[in-house]
Order: sequence, then structure tokens, then C-alpha cells
Amino acid sequence: MTTAYRKRGVDYSTGSMFTLSPEFYRSEEIYREEIDNIFYRRWLMVCREEEIPETGAFITVAVGDESIIVVRDDRGTIRAHFNVCRHRGTRICEREQGQFGSGDIQCPYHAWRYRLDGTLKAAPLMNETPSFDMSDYPLHSAHVGLWGGFVFISLAEDPVPFETEMAGLIGRFEEWHLPELRIAHTIKYELKCNWKLILQNYQECYHCPGVHPLLSKWTPFRGAVHDCMEGAVIGGYMEMKEPNGGMTMDGKPASVPVCDVSGENLRRVHYYSVFPNLLLSPHPDFVLYHRIQSVTIDRIRNDCFFLLHPDVIADGTKMERFRSAIEFWDKTNREDWHVCEQMQLGLRSRRFERGRYSGQEDILFALDREVLKALGRTPPSR
Amino acid sequence: MTTAYRKRGVDYSTGSMFTLSPEFYRSEEIYREEIDNIFYRRWLMVCREEEIPETGAFITVAVGDESIIVVRDDRGTIRAHFNVCRHRGTRICEREQGQFGSGDIQCPYHAWRYRLDGTLKAAPLMNETPSFDMSDYPLHSAHVGLWGGFVFISLAEDPVPFETEMAGLIGRFEEWHLPELRIAHTIKYELKCNWKLILQNYQECYHCPGVHPLLSKWTPFRGAVHDCMEGAVIGGYMEMKEPNGGMTMDGKPASVPVCDVSGENLRRVHYYSVFPNLLLSPHPDFVLYHRIQSVTIDRIRNDCFFLLHPDVIADGTKMERFRSAIEFWDKTNREDWHVCEQMQLGLRSRRFERGRYSGQEDILFALDREVLKALGRTPPSR
Amino acid sequence: MTTAYRKRGVDYSTGSMFTLSPEFYRSEEIYREEIDNIFYRRWLMVCREEEIPETGAFITVAVGDESIIVVRDDRGTIRAHFNVCRHRGTRICEREQGQFGSGDIQCPYHAWRYRLDGTLKAAPLMNETPSFDMSDYPLHSAHVGLWGGFVFISLAEDPVPFETEMAGLIGRFEEWHLPELRIAHTIKYELKCNWKLILQNYQECYHCPGVHPLLSKWTPFRGAVHDCMEGAVIGGYMEMKEPNGGMTMDGKPASVPVCDVSGENLRRVHYYSVFPNLLLSPHPDFVLYHRIQSVTIDRIRNDCFFLLHPDVIADGTKMERFRSAIEFWDKTNREDWHVCEQMQLGLRSRRFERGRYSGQEDILFALDREVLKALGRTPPSR
Repeated sequence: MTTAYRKRGVDYSTGSMFTLSPEFYRSEEIYREEIDNIFYRRWLMVCREEEIPETGAFITVAVGDESIIVVRDDRGTIRAHFNVCRHRGTRICEREQGQFGSGDIQCPYHAWRYRLDGTLKAAPLMNETPSFDMSDYPLHSAHVGLWGGFVFISLAEDPVPFETEMAGLIGRFEEWHLPELRIAHTIKYELKCNWKLILQNYQECYHCPGVHPLLSKWTPFRGAVHDCMEGAVIGGYMEMKEPNGGMTMDGKPASVPVCDVSGENLRRVHYYSVFPNLLLSPHPDFVLYHRIQSVTIDRIRNDCFFLLHPDVIADGTKMERFRSAIEFWDKTNREDWHVCEQMQLGLRSRRFERGRYSGQEDILFALDREVLKALGRTPPSR
Repeated sequence: MTTAYRKRGVDYSTGSMFTLSPEFYRSEEIYREEIDNIFYRRWLMVCREEEIPETGAFITVAVGDESIIVVRDDRGTIRAHFNVCRHRGTRICEREQGQFGSGDIQCPYHAWRYRLDGTLKAAPLMNETPSFDMSDYPLHSAHVGLWGGFVFISLAEDPVPFETEMAGLIGRFEEWHLPELRIAHTIKYELKCNWKLILQNYQECYHCPGVHPLLSKWTPFRGAVHDCMEGAVIGGYMEMKEPNGGMTMDGKPASVPVCDVSGENLRRVHYYSVFPNLLLSPHPDFVLYHRIQSVTIDRIRNDCFFLLHPDVIADGTKMERFRSAIEFWDKTNREDWHVCEQMQLGLRSRRFERGRYSGQEDILFALDREVLKALGRTPPSR
Repeated sequence: MTTAYRKRGVDYSTGSMFTLSPEFYRSEEIYREEIDNIFYRRWLMVCREEEIPETGAFITVAVGDESIIVVRDDRGTIRAHFNVCRHRGTRICEREQGQFGSGDIQCPYHAWRYRLDGTLKAAPLMNETPSFDMSDYPLHSAHVGLWGGFVFISLAEDPVPFETEMAGLIGRFEEWHLPELRIAHTIKYELKCNWKLILQNYQECYHCPGVHPLLSKWTPFRGAVHDCMEGAVIGGYMEMKEPNGGMTMDGKPASVPVCDVSGENLRRVHYYSVFPNLLLSPHPDFVLYHRIQSVTIDRIRNDCFFLLHPDVIADGTKMERFRSAIEFWDKTNREDWHVCEQMQLGLRSRRFERGRYSGQEDILFALDREVLKALGRTPPSR
């Protein structure tokens, strides 16, 4: 994926591009820095708006050592609260998703109660405690950003504005009417590799001929084009070989085109990474996305979702056909996970030093520099 | 539990009382300090005398990285030995309890043999080793203290005298004739929380209305009274609502009063913590106690015992009725374990700082100060 | 095992010999030093030549965080390569043994291909990368040494010459015709102890009377003689009590004498440790050896092999009888593993300091000094 990207004036293909040191995949100290400076600061995609459809509906999401409650409040606004009681630090909510019954968030230990907007509503007997002011003890809150039906949060006290970080996404993919789409299928994976290896894997197709024979047949790897590198958003597209093709087991479309998708987009498969945890892939006939959660330095959860128009989801015959896309991507995902896990194992070697990127991997060199910048470290010279 | 305690002249209810920093529940370094300064130095309750009734009978108990053999020697004296051979450091005894067969403690590796009092009796061929004096190689020993049928040990070379540390216990609960009681039932629990959270949980009933509906019905939480805070011993009692009540599923007594228990003690449930590992709870009709063992910073074992007079234990009908007390406390324990585990999870949060104790939790503020003092750290100002 | 060793002029039996500090069995820092200075530098026995009989046949072996491919190349030469692709560090080969199909070693990720001798044969599209020279990117290689049918490797860039390190082995055991022998049986063990405890266990028979009643019956422990301590090789033999004895369940030979074994060797069981990971034990009628792999500071894998002449292996009746040797050694091994595991547990004690070796254990004191020397630490004075 290089052509269009190069057109934008940065050509990484000259000189030598070296990979990050293996320390970035095995040093607990660097991993701690990544949690603090990336996962606790940047914008993370946590769910679709449809997953918390009404007042009181919530999900909880783990970020490093934090648990965050994402909930729709009485006014319909989506809020994100740290899942920890201000009284003595008890984790309040245990469920991964649900509905707050009485419209309140209540700590199971000493029964302090918070409103859906996070303010403290009741703290038994604290009126007997001198100089205790309930307004001083709302739940700690995280920032919320919305785009295309996706819910993002930032745990930073003062994050980069959502619109700045997501400039590369805003206004893009309008033909898909993303907010109207709904989750048609989910696959959950657990991988034994560092989170960065998945982003790298997603951004180059140098590995496709050997790892993905079927994908390479439908979308020849040298047709990859990068057309965006703004803030957190990096990506581009691959062209399908056949005019009426699809990313399925038989190479034919999985479904009808999504909403207003037309023209050249009928032949393109888009691949965007939204640093650090969303991989977004609009196809002509559906939208695929991955939500990445770093569990430890060498463990991630990767939940993979398929979005379709509700009319398609409601149509049993169309969904039957759609299974071919699910099968294709599950197979392709597993091909990727395997090589990422092999790379994690290899990077434990003390003998291996920094590797050399090919011209096909120039975007990884740029991605590595983003990581280094986020950690306040000097980017590698070439 | 505040009234009587306040009467003794210390009123923690004015000013602000803050909890310990979350670091005290997640820092491995602080945990190591606690092992060294608390578990390797203070008096630990390890068993009842009845568990090692005769010469050669032993239990082994784990304390941090140490294993200790508690054994009754040839004179009937209870001894505590480090379970490690003086030859090359082999752990000698593998069993949790048993009887030393020949009256000797023998290392399985090179067959060095120790007497029950810890002195080295035989070391094969060491007579050929120049300047080897058997009297230089007894088992390392720990100190032993006895009260009320309970066996305590201290791993310190020079511990605070047992009688000083236990001054708050000595002379108390005489009506129960504690040494005459026997273990009627045991429940073993494993919990995912730091050991301090259990002590804190035991010392306040602010959580009772929400967490323990039944217990709160039999003993209203505002009836809690602290009447002791001396050395390692902190505690008090709660008054039962009904004159002829009991801590059972139906609120009626579990058994006849223990030995000479009479008067106001027929209506009181006592709760004492003996820092750092015994929770002792004399009821009118039985005695409940917990032995806490810290396994890791966020794991404990908590063995819960019920003591009764041997005459009651021998009476099948009485024991049938007694099951209601076991059921009540198993249910109540599990209610507590759950919130303690939730608190441990919440304390991982980097956003949560120190919390604010209510007036109902003043004794926890005092308990925290004891921990800090034991670690040689400055107690928090208010 | 002392007599002959003492004859060679070093008498460790005077003065006091103390064990290593327990830190050497529980400090992760010291363990890391051992990996770096011993397992990444010394000669390790990895397999028998018969296990990779022809071109392309390979095994992979784990050493610390490294994985090494040991393979026979096109010329029949045995090679050892770091199992990590020079491109970006992917672990190339997943299997524990096998045959490289096309005669090539291919990375599963971006399909770089290496010849069996480690040179880079193909790197797709890297010809488009400026100043990329394929000859700069062979697989990293390890050194290989061969003796008696055994394959050794060293991960050091510049190891002590194999012949220097193995001087004590070269020319020894010629009567056994070791290269002609084949693996007749394998037993794989996993142990919960530090690797050094196994070497120590192997070098003294002070423990035999208590731990190995049967072995002590066939070979009285005071008949142990050390006759070699050169470089990595330490060892000696024990004399069988009966002229026509064998190390089996009934004390009779397990098989016919191996090849040209005759004279006094018909009555001797040899025990040699080849520091740090081979234990070699030629018996009159078979050869037993152990390959030790350190997994963590307190975990090892110990694979135990029995070598016989191919004519014996082909003879069903003889192999039936041979089962008695397998049974005897499996039982004896497990007796050893148990006490080694007990010692590892005991060495966690903070109270235990350095122990005192008996005169029977003088060779362990020498062994400890080899470890200290390898780590660049001052050997203990007596």
C-alpha cells in the first residue's frame, strides 16, 4: 500500500528503514509506557451506539487496569465513567453489559449511589461526616466522541480534540451511511502477541501472497493504495481483480451494495487503522471492523464485527449467502493471527536485532514513528 | 462500632479520615514490606491445641515463603520449627498435618534427624567432617504463645512479648471456657483480595444494611460498640434485636449458651480482630473464628471454624439444629468476600486516589495507622 | 565419590565447605546471569546424530528465550541456526522435529527463504529496496560440536573450543562404540526445581542409602570414585557389589555387554556430568543419558534416554528383558526428583542461610565454584 501515500509527498522508499527494537515487544517497562501514554491518553473505540440503545443501557470496557462504564444517561447522552466508587475504591459494576435498573449506579459495598451522569445521589450517613460535600464526589469521567455510529472514549484529562484526531475519518465513507448499519455478526479472538503486531499486520500486504492465497486471488497485493495518513487515521484500499467480485469463499459478492455505495467503491476494499485500537474495513457489500484490547504485553483480545443494513439482516436468504463473507474473513483472520504469534515468539530472541523493512512496508516505518512519538522517544533515523 | 471506643477518649469522627493509598493493595514492594515487618514479626494464630493433641503430633503452616512445623514435643510442650534442614536447605516435611512416627523429624534427602525439640540427633558421616559440632545445627525455631486453647507463633528473633501483644484478650471471654471448646465445623475459603481488606471488612458494619440483609435484621448495625483497642486486639460487640435471638437463618439460637455465658452476653455477638491474622467472634451459643493466610498481594486463604462444647458436638440432635448457624455464616461470609474482591479490583485503578472514611469507619482509620506504624511509615495526617 | 578425585591432589575434605547462598536458587537476577553466561555461552548437548539422519532433517531446541534449528545441510554437515527470520524477527519453524520439504527453510510471514546452510536464498521484492544485499542476511548461526554420536551447540559468538571443553570425554568410553548406539527408549520428565540441583544430585551418593534403597543395594554408596574433573566434564563410577550384577529391578544384567565392554568396566556404573546440561551414564549393558533444559528458575525439563546396540533393539526377547532397566531407572529418577523438588521449596526460606557440605559432597563444592566462575563472581572461601 504505497502509491497514493507517496503521492502525498513522503517517500519512505529511499534509504534504509529499520524496524523497532525487539525491546518494544518484550520490555514490561516500555509496555507500561504504552499503557500510560497511548491507551490511557488516546481515543479508543469501545462500542457501537446501538449497543447502548436507551437510558440506563451500559457496557463496561477494560483499559489497562481501568474498567470504564459507558452508559446512556437520562437525556440520551452517552457518558463514560471510571467504574470505581469514590468512597473507598470498590469496582461498582461487574457485568460486561446490561441496564441500570432504577436508573442509578450503585456500589455493592456501602451502597453509595450515582446518577447516570455520574453525580453522587446518595451516600448513607455521610451527612454525619463534617465537611463532606456530595458534589465533590462524582464518578471520575472519561471523554466521549462519536462518529459513524461508533463510540470512542479517552481517559486523558485533556485529550487531543476528537475532531482533530479523527479528521481523516470525518466526511469519509458517507456512501455507506455508517450510523444506519447494525451488527450482523461477531467473532471474538484471543491472540498471543503484542498489540502493535496486529496494526502492522493490517497495514501491509507484503505477506499476502504467502499467508492469504484466497485474498491474494481476489485482490492482488500490488494493487494496494494508501490514501490517508492524518492524526490517528492511516489507510487506503485494494482493488478487486474482478469487476463484480467480493471478499468471500467464492470471490462473488456477499450481499447487495451497502446503501449508496457506487462507482469505483464497488470494486474497492478499504482498510483503515484508527490508532490505537480500531481497524475499519468498508467493503462494497458490508463493513468489517476489529476492536483491539491489549491485555498484557503479549496478549490481546480482538473482537471482529460485521455491519450490514437492517433490511439485509432481516432477510434470511440474504444472510444465508452472507455466511460466505464470515467464513472468508474468519479464515483470513486466523492466517494473520498465526504469523503475528510466530513473530511475537521470534522477537524474544536476544540475537535478533532490528530488522529491515521492504518498500512494501514503508507505512509500518511511519506507524513505528507514531508509537515512538507517543512515548516521547526519539524516532529512529534511517 | 464506635460508641464505647469513643468513650475511651479518641474521637476520630472530627476532621477528615482518608483511606490508605491504593498502592497498599497493588505494590509488590509494599507487600514485601508487609511480609517482612508484619507476617515475619507479629504473632500469628496457627491452630488450636486440640489439633496437636499428643507427643509427635504436628501441623505445618505456610507464612510467606516459610513453612513452619508446629509440633508437641516429648514433654508435651508445643514447639515451632522452621521446616528446613540445616544441612542444605531441603524442606523436611510435606504433609499439612500428621504424627512424627519414631518421635523424630527426618529430612528425606540425606537423612539428617532432629528430635521433636529441634536438636540435631543424627547426621550420617558428619563425624568424618572436621570441626562439625552437632549442637550447632538444631532446626531454626519460632516463638510460641498460648491463649484460650489457641496456638500462636512469631517468626521474629525477638518478638514483642506475647502477653503484651495479647493484653486485650487475656482475662476476656472467661465465661466461654475457651480451652474446653472443640472444633465442630470448618469451612475453607480462597479469596482474590489483599489480606487487609478482610480485616477492614470485619471492623465496620457500615456495609451491613446493603450487603447482609439477614444479619442486619438480627443485629441492627447502629448497635455496634467498640470496647477494646490494645496492642494487636481491636473489637467490640453488636446487640441482638430480640432478647432470645441467634445468628442463624431463622434468628433463633443455634444451641444452648456456651458454658457460663450469661447476662448481657446472652444478647451480644462479639467481633475481635487479633492483628494480623485472627478474627474471633464469641457468640452466646458458639464461638466463630477465622484464620487468615496471605498467599500473594491479592490472594488469601481464610479458614473459618466453629467451636462448641464437646457435649454439644456429641449430641446429634443439637448438631442438626446447629447447621442453621453454619448456613447463616457461610452465606454472610460469601456476601463479604464478594465485596472485598470487588474492592481489590477497583483499587487497581490509577484514577482512584485516597477515599474518605465515614464516621462509621473510624476504626479502619486506626487500623490503617497500625499497618503504617508496623512498616515504619508515617501515618497519614487527616 | 571422593577417593580417586582426592588422589589427583585436591582434597576438599579439610576445612569447612559451605553451599551456595539460597539466592542462587531464587533470585531472578542471578538466574538471568546464568542464562546469559552459562546457557547462552557454554556447550549444550541437544540431540543424537541419529535424530537428524539425512539432508533437511531437523530438530528445534529451546535455550532460554532462543529457539535453535539443528539441521543437516546438503553436504551432510550438521548446522545450528537461530530460528528467527532476519527480515522482521518472526520465529520460522514451529515443529519440534521434521524434514524441510524443498530443502529450504521458509519464514511463514513474508516468505523469505533460507538454504539449509543458513544463507538467504530468496526475499520477495527486496530487489526493489536500495542497497539491500542478500549476503548480509543469513540466519544467525550457532556453533556445533560432535562427540560419540552426540550433537552439541554453543550460542556464544566465540566459545571455548569444543575439544578443550570436552577434553575429559574425548578418548573415553571407546569400548562402548558410542556412535554406533541408538536410542532404545525415552522418558520425559518435568521438575519443579532449579537446574543446578539436578547436577548436584547426580554428583553425590550421600543421599543414596535413604533415597535409593535398591540402587544402594546393587552399588554400595561408599564405593563411589571420582576419576575426572576437566573443563565441563566431572565424574567417576560406582562399583557393583555382585560380579555379574546389573542396574535393574532384580539386580541382574539388563542385556549383553555393549560392544567391546570388558574387564573392570563390566562391574562399573559410570556417572559423568557435562556442564551444564548433559548427564551421561555408561553401564556395562547400556548407556543412560539425561538432557536438561532450564525452563524457569524453578522449572526444568529432563529427558532421559537409553542407548543400545541396534542388534539388541531389533531383538524382541532382549528388549523384553531390558524393561527391567527402564523400570529401575524410572523409579530411581523419581526418587531423585522428589528430593530435588523438596530442596527447591526449602531454599525459599529467608531463615536458612548457607549449609555445610559433608566430605561426601566435596565435588558439589567444586561444582558450585564452577558456577561462580562462569558468572564472574568470587568463589566462596571456606
